[in-house]
Amino acid sequence: MTAKPLLTLVKIGGNILNNEAATREVLDEFTRIPETKVLVHGGGRAATEIAARLDVPQTMIDGRRVTDAETLKIAVMVYGGLINKSIVSGLQSRGVPAIGIMGADLGLIRARKRPANPVDYGFVGDIEAVSLEKLLPLLPAGVTPVVAPLTHDGAGTILNTNADSIANALAAALSQHYEVRLVYSFERNGVESGTSGEVIPEITRSAFSRLKESGAVSGGMIPKLENAFAALDSGVSEVVIGNARLLPALLAGSAGTRICHER
Amino acid sequence: MTAKPLLTLVKIGGNILNNEAATREVLDEFTRIPETKVLVHGGGRAATEIAARLDVPQTMIDGRRVTDAETLKIAVMVYGGLINKSIVSGLQSRGVPAIGIMGADLGLIRARKRPANPVDYGFVGDIEAVSLEKLLPLLPAGVTPVVAPLTHDGAGTILNTNADSIANALAAALSQHYEVRLVYSFERNGVESGTSGEVIPEITRSAFSRLKESGAVSGGMIPKLENAFAALDSGVSEVVIGNARLLPALLAGSAGTRICHER
Repeated sequence: MTAKPLLTLVKIGGNILNNEAATREVLDEFTRIPETKVLVHGGGRAATEIAARLDVPQTMIDGRRVTDAETLKIAVMVYGGLINKSIVSGLQSRGVPAIGIMGADLGLIRARKRPANPVDYGFVGDIEAVSLEKLLPLLPAGVTPVVAPLTHDGAGTILNTNADSIANALAAALSQHYEVRLVYSFERNGVESGTSGEVIPEITRSAFSRLKESGAVSGGMIPKLENAFAALDSGVSEVVIGNARLLPALLAGSAGTRICHER
Repeated sequence: MTAKPLLTLVKIGGNILNNEAATREVLDEFTRIPETKVLVHGGGRAATEIAARLDVPQTMIDGRRVTDAETLKIAVMVYGGLINKSIVSGLQSRGVPAIGIMGADLGLIRARKRPANPVDYGFVGDIEAVSLEKLLPLLPAGVTPVVAPLTHDGAGTILNTNADSIANALAAALSQHYEVRLVYSFERNGVESGTSGEVIPEITRSAFSRLKESGAVSGGMIPKLENAFAALDSGVSEVVIGNARLLPALLAGSAGTRICHER
């Protein structure tokens, strides 16, 4: 059995994209990744700003945005258009043969509109299937997909979809063909202990249980870590969580939090 | 020498895209084209509407829009995001493995920002080079590119670019590998004679000279026809101009205006 080729999938969180200098730095470092690579990006503040300027009221339920028809259009414009194509042209200028896509392109990610019960979040998709058939042949030619957090239902409707979920689902599917390293990058240095404040360098599933119990890990970091373990379970080799501006150190294992199987 | 495979490139004008029912009809008919196909779309009113709602004033010079930085963002959102991804998800729902791209994606179309003299149109691109290297391998697998009227300068800047020019440049480049039929579809039935009002079924270059002299063809149709003849000169086999809602008849040669070499 020959070893699978390496692939690094970097998910860049929305807040990084709000900062032009940070975005440039991250794209510089992303460009330097020598192996096959994929970038998944979040949304950021731009959609909220455009919604305000367009007088489209944003409804939040339990801290989550409701994607009504007008908000969906904004998401498609901002995530699928402005952010996606800006990253693509930035990567092209650095010599990376990038292609900007979302779940409908190449039939990549099909999702199901989340049921309206108990809470109607509107045009939000839960991922059902990833089809790599049309995308895979591009990768050995060096093509670098830049994926916006949007999917489709296969019946013509675009759905707003969590970028972490997209990164996860793609990483899992790609791990059948590649040795996949998944990097969740954002504006924090990694998983910080709520008790010591320090970045936890490595978390196994048993450590995760203890960290949750002790309250050292809580809030929004819990679903992020659940996602990371789910990725490991579906065949991803390694998951790293950390600061997007430290991408080389994250990749070298000298920064961020590494999520791994028990040894 | 083996015959080249057929490819039909359909350019859909902006006004068609303002009408949901018309867009559905056109996508239905486009889906039925059996050979390799490419769709290039224009802008339509959506960008003007969004600009008005965002309070971004639109400056027109000689009937042409000036693309300042804010207007460019709107073009990227609306053309590269909303319109492009809506067409892609519509085609996917019809079983067409579409991929939505613009000039920066796959390094497809590089343009030069139009000089600010004599008139500064802002972020508008004149096409310099088409590179099919990364796109061509997708086509035999049935992938159908849907191309937005945007290019890039190769240095990270996106440029607003005329959709007819994009259709033309792509058709010319593709004709080195395919027998290309180019269809400019819009809301009119073809090239209508300014004198008789009837659709002119066929125009050769010598007929075009006579039609211009007699005033039977004038205005915006002249650059469209110049484009069509330029396409023929660069190797495109056939150019048809006509009503998007009559696509099957246009393709069968029973509607629209056929632009062709002298016999």
